[in-house]
Amino acid sequence: MYGISAQKLYDKLQKRHIVGATGKISIELLNVMCNVSDKSAVGNLLQEWLGAWMSENKIYYRTNPNTQEFPDFYLGKSDASDLLEIKTFDFTKTPNFDIANFDAYVRSVMTKSYRFDADYLIFGYTLTENGLKIENIWLKKIWEITCPSKQYALRVQVKQGKIMNIRPYNFKTASQGFQPFATRYDFIDAIKQTLANYPLQTVTDQEWHQAVQANYASFH
Amino acid sequence: MYGISAQKLYDKLQKRHIVGATGKISIELLNVMCNVSDKSAVGNLLQEWLGAWMSENKIYYRTNPNTQEFPDFYLGKSDASDLLEIKTFDFTKTPNFDIANFDAYVRSVMTKSYRFDADYLIFGYTLTENGLKIENIWLKKIWEITCPSKQYALRVQVKQGKIMNIRPYNFKTASQGFQPFATRYDFIDAIKQTLANYPLQTVTDQEWHQAVQANYASFH
Repeated sequence: MYGISAQKLYDKLQKRHIVGATGKISIELLNVMCNVSDKSAVGNLLQEWLGAWMSENKIYYRTNPNTQEFPDFYLGKSDASDLLEIKTFDFTKTPNFDIANFDAYVRSVMTKSYRFDADYLIFGYTLTENGLKIENIWLKKIWEITCPSKQYALRVQVKQGKIMNIRPYNFKTASQGFQPFATRYDFIDAIKQTLANYPLQTVTDQEWHQAVQANYASFH
Repeated sequence: MYGISAQKLYDKLQKRHIVGATGKISIELLNVMCNVSDKSAVGNLLQEWLGAWMSENKIYYRTNPNTQEFPDFYLGKSDASDLLEIKTFDFTKTPNFDIANFDAYVRSVMTKSYRFDADYLIFGYTLTENGLKIENIWLKKIWEITCPSKQYALRVQVKQGKIMNIRPYNFKTASQGFQPFATRYDFIDAIKQTLANYPLQTVTDQEWHQAVQANYASFH
């Protein structure tokens, strides 16, 4: 189910004992070296580290020239397959990272529906004054880390009535209650239902679904 | 004009040749060490480093237990004086960091008007694969790094008609056009005028100004 390259990367990280591995984030200036304990930086730094680790281990990858955009890495030569997103979260807490901006994601898959097939490599870490520790990693598809919620067919972050980001199912503890989607089609359906109750300015739920159907190879 | 402790800190950093100093931000895991070139982390990391550097140099400080809140450091034993905010920006660009969330700042100074007197220590850095370099530092008061704009009496970031953050005057090049405020009172006046055109839900510009006048020792 996962991309072959992503699965290989995941397997190799496991084989090298990434789970349980300890490391350090540090900043040095004027001869004062400081071990960083601020968690806000970990996501970006772990992503940079993974690039360096893949280079060191001769694993082919390309980074996205626009670091703000999806995906974080391409594991193949095509821009339409082997997409890899990196997500990180503080393992002492429930995973609640932004999977994607709802509006941007929903619009982008109308033309770039191969994004549904992206792989998500997730790092659960702890960061203390003793250093960084990788507590667990996961390889997931988006429909495996998303779920419905009481308010919408898709669990999202809502701010002042506005849908902001797609937020994850608690895969860390495999929590009870709303369960993740069984297939990519259930996930797509959940977006459609969400759009029916929360229309975007330029596209209806029907138009969105038709565009995805016409465009997404897995439907054919 | 600046707090005595903040001035001492600034002088000591200058004396130790912080301007021009080079350093490194790195992450190490599974025996792969990676020099970080992602700029999004620099602000938080430099702030952590400054704490370590002050400890090393026996400069008294306390960090804010809530790292998201104003100020970043207390340089004295009181919570109502010697407040120090740290700001950082990529020196290859025009400084455009968020000085403060407009709404939160405006509300907070109604009761905590000593915040007007906080010192701002600003680092202009460059970050390349060769490392981190401090290109310049500044010690400033808020009215020295803020200015009017065409739309409002105070230069702010506006998103979909909503005022988000207070944004800086270009103190790096001392740009022409709108100039920074000459005094704290001009800055306070600019907030009042901005509120007259952009009322907050629970307070009018008059009410706000009265609260600040009653509360701010420098007015007496």
